[in-house]
Amino acid sequence: MSLRILFPALIAIALTACATPQPEDAATSLREHALQDQAGYAFVRDLTTEVGPRMGGTEADARAVAWTKARFEQMGFDKVWTEPVTFPQWQRTHERAHVLGKFPQPLHITALGGSVGTDGELQGEVVMVDDYAALVATPSARVKDKIVFIKNRMRKHKEGAGYGEAVIARGKGALEAEAKGAKALLIRSIGTDSHRFAHTGMMSMSAGSPQIPAAALSNPDADQLERLIAKGKVNLSLDINVGWTGEYTSHNVIAEITGNKKPDEIIVIGGHLDSWDLGTGALDDGAGVAITAGAAYQFIKHRLRPGRTIRVVAFSNEEQGLVGAKAYAKAHANELDRHIVASESDFGAGPIWALKTRLNNADEAFIARATALLKPLGIEYLGNDATSGGPDIIPLAEKGVQLFQLKQDGTDYFDYHHTADDTLDKIDPVAFNQNIAAWTVMLHLFANEWQMDQ
Amino acid sequence: MSLRILFPALIAIALTACATPQPEDAATSLREHALQDQAGYAFVRDLTTEVGPRMGGTEADARAVAWTKARFEQMGFDKVWTEPVTFPQWQRTHERAHVLGKFPQPLHITALGGSVGTDGELQGEVVMVDDYAALVATPSARVKDKIVFIKNRMRKHKEGAGYGEAVIARGKGALEAEAKGAKALLIRSIGTDSHRFAHTGMMSMSAGSPQIPAAALSNPDADQLERLIAKGKVNLSLDINVGWTGEYTSHNVIAEITGNKKPDEIIVIGGHLDSWDLGTGALDDGAGVAITAGAAYQFIKHRLRPGRTIRVVAFSNEEQGLVGAKAYAKAHANELDRHIVASESDFGAGPIWALKTRLNNADEAFIARATALLKPLGIEYLGNDATSGGPDIIPLAEKGVQLFQLKQDGTDYFDYHHTADDTLDKIDPVAFNQNIAAWTVMLHLFANEWQMDQ
Repeated sequence: MSLRILFPALIAIALTACATPQPEDAATSLREHALQDQAGYAFVRDLTTEVGPRMGGTEADARAVAWTKARFEQMGFDKVWTEPVTFPQWQRTHERAHVLGKFPQPLHITALGGSVGTDGELQGEVVMVDDYAALVATPSARVKDKIVFIKNRMRKHKEGAGYGEAVIARGKGALEAEAKGAKALLIRSIGTDSHRFAHTGMMSMSAGSPQIPAAALSNPDADQLERLIAKGKVNLSLDINVGWTGEYTSHNVIAEITGNKKPDEIIVIGGHLDSWDLGTGALDDGAGVAITAGAAYQFIKHRLRPGRTIRVVAFSNEEQGLVGAKAYAKAHANELDRHIVASESDFGAGPIWALKTRLNNADEAFIARATALLKPLGIEYLGNDATSGGPDIIPLAEKGVQLFQLKQDGTDYFDYHHTADDTLDKIDPVAFNQNIAAWTVMLHLFANEWQMDQ
Repeated sequence: MSLRILFPALIAIALTACATPQPEDAATSLREHALQDQAGYAFVRDLTTEVGPRMGGTEADARAVAWTKARFEQMGFDKVWTEPVTFPQWQRTHERAHVLGKFPQPLHITALGGSVGTDGELQGEVVMVDDYAALVATPSARVKDKIVFIKNRMRKHKEGAGYGEAVIARGKGALEAEAKGAKALLIRSIGTDSHRFAHTGMMSMSAGSPQIPAAALSNPDADQLERLIAKGKVNLSLDINVGWTGEYTSHNVIAEITGNKKPDEIIVIGGHLDSWDLGTGALDDGAGVAITAGAAYQFIKHRLRPGRTIRVVAFSNEEQGLVGAKAYAKAHANELDRHIVASESDFGAGPIWALKTRLNNADEAFIARATALLKPLGIEYLGNDATSGGPDIIPLAEKGVQLFQLKQDGTDYFDYHHTADDTLDKIDPVAFNQNIAAWTVMLHLFANEWQMDQ
């Protein structure tokens, strides 16, 4: 019997008998139905279309908050509310780079988040270094009054392992270059594509806010700059108009389905609502909010009230320093012991291939049950040593909240990450719904089965 | 014996015996050696790096002419010269589009070649039509004072068959929209990618120069605009600063290897030197000039003087109306009867899969010989009914010059065509050298074997 036929029958039974179907049936049926449901996809489609780019602190940030609150209400969550998140406001007006001298031509760049501007045109000679470590090892005399260019390329990897290796150039490059007397920093984009899109992204502000401008070149432009440097001295003109402008209050948007057995025990899932300003934030991270909200919605749609409370958080301003996540952890400090598990979707919309957990008691029966339910989706269980539940879960994990992680195939994620090219067409609807089905399974297990009798 | 070993031996024999090797040996050896030679790739690499974008009429146009003349001389052609080409100058300063109203956001556009500017900001409501034919069929009342948006998408095709179907929107859309009283034209980019690059390209000026601004949206932005229109009335703001500015004189750059048997009989090959201003013109058409020059160079490198004269033409300003090609045909009108065959490479750098000819006498033995020499390169012969020898050959073909056509796989060509993303990394060096080998074979055949005894 097809599940499309089975499902209404199950609901009818549930409604007429006023009884929940057997957990085994419910989990499988939820999973199969979630594969077909369109509410999640509609969420990311409409968010990226109606709001579009929504960088923290822009006018679109406020529109995104209002949009998401309205959509959560429309979807029928029991409670929907917002919580304030305040942060310094950074804005981008324009950014231009040109090669001067014998081979004049434009280069495609984008300022790094948190950069200062050039205050008009800045000219300088380029000094190329292999990577961040090479910059650290470079004598100040070599880079003083120069434009430093960090050239290393991020490698592709299913789990994004190349990101951690490469992103230090973005995080710490400007501060290091500034300390050595450089007048600006350019990096090769932290991205794995070969298209003419520069990848933006935040600099680390933990050791101080750099006072020299910093920008990324697209990969083809970084190739071009390398070739030009091989031909002799290269001088560039930079005209970058960006900077810190004030303080802004945005909001986390939170939606809840109240549990009917252990309502005080909360499963926290979500994604981040903000995007960078260049694209429409489909993969990063409209998808994450939409996948998790779309999974929670399966319970509303099928009138299957969960035993525990399911809370979906659309975190504010992840990009500029997990600002919404920190505010959430602070605001909910006194109920974190009732956050029984947490996880975020923030790695695009590629198919999920593995589950990891970090549970104090990952009992065999529960893991066997999860494994069996996820296997038809092509997902394997990798163990109870999850190191991350997503960036916005870090502040919760630090307070001891247990985690699970649905690992997506991120091979292509860094082709689009933080670029103008992060748009809806990059989401494969089939992989997207496989995500929703997997999240639905995990919500069911944690809400209705995990340690329910203890 | 490897050809790398064989080849110097052959040259040694040729030089010591003052005799040309047997044609069979020479053709095969030339082909195999051409597969490895780096001069062609160095040409396109250096042109796109040192000159970069080189739109007709820009300062880079003059640099491209000087660069190409110097490189031809460096390669050792017998004669290198330039011939003037004069045309109206069109320039691009900036182009911006924003959605107004409830869903404000930027859209990525690029002005079409020959467009007028908006003279500041232009606002208007968008009226969407399915394609150019639908615009023709639309009553004026529907589009009067509106911004017309032609939405149809170009399809992918190995031979670029989708281009002809779609490009009429670019060629004639603005004039048609203007005639119906529209205030601007937007089209979906004539391109097959789904990246945030708008594809520029010339409007047809044959029926008059449109006086309303015209621009193309990237494919993801066209998708977005379609989705927005589905939600209700859409108003846009356009700010396009482009236009005609004067007259400019550029040059065709011509290089020749003088034949030693029939020096007055000329084989004309080449590509166009100009590119659009957005990318660095690697595929369109640095590759074409480099492939044909790289093939001719095989004769110089190996001191194998051809029987007929080989002439490589780097045509000026193909993009804005075959201007250099027309000037060439006019300047050489009195020697076209001595142009025994002509062909251009202007479809990127994908592998060649077929040969076509249009010869008055495509004798069986010659075709069999060509087929045998091209077969190891994966190239088949498709017949003597070639309809094109490349855009810049049209004025010659109209005067009766015979043609050959080495057909490239253009499946991906329109992913990059006329965008900022047309950069060197899009050239596959292996396919590029397969092109050089095929052109080398054809040059050898036409210079040394074809109708040599008649």
